[in-house]
Amino acid sequence: MSAKTPCYLDHNASAPVRPEVLEAVREALEASVGNPSSMHLEGRRSAAMIDDARRRIGAALGIDRRRIVFTSGATESNNLALRGAVAKRPALRVITSAAEHVSTLATVRDLAAHGTDTVVLPVDAAGSPSGRELMRAAAERFSLVSLGWAGGETGHVLDAAALLKQLARSAIVHLDAAQIFGRLPLRIPEGVDMLSLSAHKIGGPAGVGLLVAPAEELHPLITGGPHERGLRAGTENVAGIVGMAVAVTAATETAASEAVRLSALREQIWEKIAAALPDVLRITPHNGLPNTLTMAVTGIGSDVLIAGLDLEGFCVSSGSACAAGSPERSPVIEAIGTPERYRDGVVRVSMGWSTEAADVEAFPQAFERVVRRAKLAA
Amino acid sequence: MSAKTPCYLDHNASAPVRPEVLEAVREALEASVGNPSSMHLEGRRSAAMIDDARRRIGAALGIDRRRIVFTSGATESNNLALRGAVAKRPALRVITSAAEHVSTLATVRDLAAHGTDTVVLPVDAAGSPSGRELMRAAAERFSLVSLGWAGGETGHVLDAAALLKQLARSAIVHLDAAQIFGRLPLRIPEGVDMLSLSAHKIGGPAGVGLLVAPAEELHPLITGGPHERGLRAGTENVAGIVGMAVAVTAATETAASEAVRLSALREQIWEKIAAALPDVLRITPHNGLPNTLTMAVTGIGSDVLIAGLDLEGFCVSSGSACAAGSPERSPVIEAIGTPERYRDGVVRVSMGWSTEAADVEAFPQAFERVVRRAKLAA
Repeated sequence: MSAKTPCYLDHNASAPVRPEVLEAVREALEASVGNPSSMHLEGRRSAAMIDDARRRIGAALGIDRRRIVFTSGATESNNLALRGAVAKRPALRVITSAAEHVSTLATVRDLAAHGTDTVVLPVDAAGSPSGRELMRAAAERFSLVSLGWAGGETGHVLDAAALLKQLARSAIVHLDAAQIFGRLPLRIPEGVDMLSLSAHKIGGPAGVGLLVAPAEELHPLITGGPHERGLRAGTENVAGIVGMAVAVTAATETAASEAVRLSALREQIWEKIAAALPDVLRITPHNGLPNTLTMAVTGIGSDVLIAGLDLEGFCVSSGSACAAGSPERSPVIEAIGTPERYRDGVVRVSMGWSTEAADVEAFPQAFERVVRRAKLAA
Repeated sequence: MSAKTPCYLDHNASAPVRPEVLEAVREALEASVGNPSSMHLEGRRSAAMIDDARRRIGAALGIDRRRIVFTSGATESNNLALRGAVAKRPALRVITSAAEHVSTLATVRDLAAHGTDTVVLPVDAAGSPSGRELMRAAAERFSLVSLGWAGGETGHVLDAAALLKQLARSAIVHLDAAQIFGRLPLRIPEGVDMLSLSAHKIGGPAGVGLLVAPAEELHPLITGGPHERGLRAGTENVAGIVGMAVAVTAATETAASEAVRLSALREQIWEKIAAALPDVLRITPHNGLPNTLTMAVTGIGSDVLIAGLDLEGFCVSSGSACAAGSPERSPVIEAIGTPERYRDGVVRVSMGWSTEAADVEAFPQAFERVVRRAKLAA
């Protein structure tokens, strides 16, 4: 396989833009001449494009479209949920888990440094905080509970409905659904107040996302005009919002069938690797994200594995791309109690709409070659 | 003229996307498969696209490209400049003028409500604060001075170099250049620490902008991964950034010739209107933004004028689209001392790259018809 047409297996970092999204964005860039806040025909035309996208996304998510706040992506959405709630109620306790995306963990750390009462709960091997500890932390003080519904690094999926049932509406609840949406058919559980999504994880354009949010619980992060019910100022990214609606619709319609298709591909990869390299640790459980296979090897660094697979024509990651600039190990891999000797050798395969069976066919052998070569060199 | 192909004269609210930008965005959406933070080939390819855009924009602006922080637009950039500086130095005084864009005025108001020391200076008829008052306010306490280099509502242009010379580097200086960039050839004056730009005002895509900023003066608004030197977390809008670079390059190259071309069109419009309706007040001065003609009439509301012109096939505004949702009068029009009887009848024509001489030819007659019809109905 030539390095010029790599096999892209890194959908959890970012998915290629779907062809129908590309076409919709191109059309919208041309058609949305006016500022959606302008009174004239071109302004109203742009505003109608946003209205239509909001309606379609509301229908796909099964939520009231008026609760949608468009943002520049899930990182901003998570910041708006956390910072916005604390700015509104400075006495709020913020509870999260040790297995969260860096946009949540770094924000909670920053809030703590500026005086917010924060609790970061440990997680079990499945990446979940204990329901009892969550309940206890939330009972002590009025709280915002912010959790990733699924972990993009490990593929763990929280039993959100069960956890929220235990909370019994005693806290404001925020779920980051950026990594689960489109990967599994979803029903937003009772008791969820806020929900983050990002378009680029599901084949929409980067630079657009949303927060499902009640206006009364949040202070805006970005102030100015009265856009998005006063929760998010700034001229709307009309073409991005239109593209996100197309991606959300496609991801919703295909979530169930893709879950079946991709988990079958995942198990094919895993069976071959487990047979050839019995020492490889599987991190993603069978009931985790169907598109994800996170594994770890001993004695070889992730960077060596990823560079080796890159030369073999496969694009994979070690974990969160958003934390890739930092030299530290992934805190999530530590938090789930991965044995010490495996912590530096994590590799994640993550598939999506663009993945075909033929693409992944050759992966296990390439993986084996890279591991054996690295062990020889070590 | 049919209402289906309106003559778009509202570039200060948002400019149509330039054809070369449309093509570049489409190509980048297809080519930027990977997350720019990913180590593999597709990640590096996306990162290289951002590097290239940053280099081109740095060259166009004549600044060190490493000082550029990409954001979702000038509203976010203004928030980052103001909130970021205050978060870094809570004792900072924030000084601005009464003629600013709502993203600055609302943010300063919000900071004041949360305990920041703020000063909003009055402006003269040319939309400028007095250099002496600015100096006095900045001398009392270490300050951030934040000013719009040009006012998009009125077309006034600040003599930024003269004002900053008086400050003599005693304050941190932020200029919002969203409305001046591409309209006049620019040289960023000595003593400017931060500068905001938005792509969609110059024919780039909406949803992307930048802040030129020194990392050491700011705390990030949006935290998470170490993107943009730690000043702006979140997966980069690669295609938007590429599109912005194309728009910035085109706007820079054509700024001088467009200033000549559009100011000539502007004077043609004005001469005909002034001859037909001598009672119309011209607000934009001859040395203001060359693309802008803000006028006011008595006895007719802006909404009537804009709706009437819309029916005639012309898209114009009364002022800032970003504040259009609010029922109040424009604070900028009040701040410059517009006579009371004119304050409700403001209309702004703003041209740009897509404007052709034939488009504006018919405008004065349409304007006259709408005014006369409204006066009859009143």
